[in-house]
Amino acid sequence: MATINDVAERAGVSVTTVSRVLNNRGYISEKTRQKVYRTMEELNYQPNEIARSLLRKQSNIIGLIIPSLSHPFFAEFANSVEFHAYQSGYKLLLCNSQLEQAKERDYIEMMKRNRVDGIIMGSHTLEVEEYRNLNYPIVTLDRQIDDIPFVASDNERGGELAAQLLIDKGCRKIAHICGNLQLNMLANRRTTAFERIVRKNGIEFMTIQTDMNVFDQEEYERIITTLLTEHSDIDGVFATSDIIAAFVVKWCRKLGKEVPGQIRVVGYDDVNAASWVSPSITTIKQPIRDMGRLAVELISKQMNGEPIGKVHLLPVELVERETT
Amino acid sequence: MATINDVAERAGVSVTTVSRVLNNRGYISEKTRQKVYRTMEELNYQPNEIARSLLRKQSNIIGLIIPSLSHPFFAEFANSVEFHAYQSGYKLLLCNSQLEQAKERDYIEMMKRNRVDGIIMGSHTLEVEEYRNLNYPIVTLDRQIDDIPFVASDNERGGELAAQLLIDKGCRKIAHICGNLQLNMLANRRTTAFERIVRKNGIEFMTIQTDMNVFDQEEYERIITTLLTEHSDIDGVFATSDIIAAFVVKWCRKLGKEVPGQIRVVGYDDVNAASWVSPSITTIKQPIRDMGRLAVELISKQMNGEPIGKVHLLPVELVERETT
Repeated sequence: MATINDVAERAGVSVTTVSRVLNNRGYISEKTRQKVYRTMEELNYQPNEIARSLLRKQSNIIGLIIPSLSHPFFAEFANSVEFHAYQSGYKLLLCNSQLEQAKERDYIEMMKRNRVDGIIMGSHTLEVEEYRNLNYPIVTLDRQIDDIPFVASDNERGGELAAQLLIDKGCRKIAHICGNLQLNMLANRRTTAFERIVRKNGIEFMTIQTDMNVFDQEEYERIITTLLTEHSDIDGVFATSDIIAAFVVKWCRKLGKEVPGQIRVVGYDDVNAASWVSPSITTIKQPIRDMGRLAVELISKQMNGEPIGKVHLLPVELVERETT
Repeated sequence: MATINDVAERAGVSVTTVSRVLNNRGYISEKTRQKVYRTMEELNYQPNEIARSLLRKQSNIIGLIIPSLSHPFFAEFANSVEFHAYQSGYKLLLCNSQLEQAKERDYIEMMKRNRVDGIIMGSHTLEVEEYRNLNYPIVTLDRQIDDIPFVASDNERGGELAAQLLIDKGCRKIAHICGNLQLNMLANRRTTAFERIVRKNGIEFMTIQTDMNVFDQEEYERIITTLLTEHSDIDGVFATSDIIAAFVVKWCRKLGKEVPGQIRVVGYDDVNAASWVSPSITTIKQPIRDMGRLAVELISKQMNGEPIGKVHLLPVELVERETT
């Protein structure tokens, strides 16, 4: 691990000079400043705590990378992150990755150049390697990568609750619409738990993977109409988001199937929309506001050099409304 | 208007030094740099075009101030701003004002300290004076303040289209739910146009003002249930957002009134949710994506010293769906 001495030697300056650059004090030419910065980056130098605090005063910016603000879950998460960041004296640099690797990589580079104090990663398109090499306070959302601290809600419990509710309501053939299970997301545990519970109860089920995280109306409608027309004996649906659940309800209505009379529907997240659509959506509530608060807190603590655990799992809650 | 000579004189340095500070070049002590910056702020000094371009290279950040990401309109607008900002090489500093003056003022100060290249104002709680005194590329959303360039869609046309549709569908007593008309927002023109059309046609109407821009479920429900129960002969509703329209549909259903059979409902914005709720919402479509693109473009042009007009009005479109 590079020390301040290593940086000084490589940059051809004194340790005092490096210290002044870090503290943004004293008589430093721009040329020297840039040389020291470059050297620190080359050596992946991590300033010590005091120096970092002083350096931090120049930034006080947290970067947030999410797939898209079009998806209410991420909009509400970003809302909470911004609120809590502001409370703690930080600004928010926002990035929508649209799940594109190039864009995500580009944003991470940009955040480093802007000397953000930390990054909250809600978008996961890059290879694990690239996250490992970031020498930065980072918190991931709903993804477990090595020892990088993450925030998530109890996906496994969520899948259990949803499955059990539909079974208790009398469903005998349940469709589960989820995200791409190839991606190593903690959300996959909803599916694993769901399948475990329905199997245990001898309930027929089918799992349909969608290929997107972000809002893609036509794709959702295609999947749902195909499902409902080709499997007209389905009497329960567990969708991995309230948005998908809303589409299911919409298409059940169009195809003459009553909700909840003929088909019961459970969503996930409990975004605001779940309660203002009609029928309002039974869902597994993720504590989105707390997740945002916690993510900011964990960046803060890392910056202060406080020890933090890796796993930060918040409880979910079943919210029964009108679709079951 | 202060010149570079004024700054040099007041700061007690040479013009060359001021120029170097602006260009971030050469041999400048931090103490001198700070003194020059402070002097520039005191004198409200606006660097010339070339200097500004060079200064800009240090920032490339656009600030966006909106009420809240909880409201789908602002989430989608922010999404578009971020997308187009990125395309043009800018980063986005996001602020949710929650319509609090202190927070909005604080954010504007913070953006100046961070030397953002421009600010897109989508939140309007401060007195007009405070916007006038910002010596900055600014674009406002849906508000006309002096000569500050603004982006809006054709609110007047929107109000006309909504009123005319409900009349053409046979409505004889129409409720219009709008925002706070005391605020000087261009959205008020929807209401003015609506009232003009219904009066012209001899249609009975009532206008109910809500006190919020941002998402407040309980308030919406209170207003709507009161309206529907106290005026059960209402056969048409023109709501100033799709969210309010969705609540109207929800409560009509709960109170046993069919939509569109007994009550026809028109929303506003055409956020994504308008098409995935059921019945899907007839609405006046704001070209949200184009508004974001245009806002970024106008910041860019101001930075490049290009002349831009003040008024940037984009067309709206009636989208007929299932609630009329």
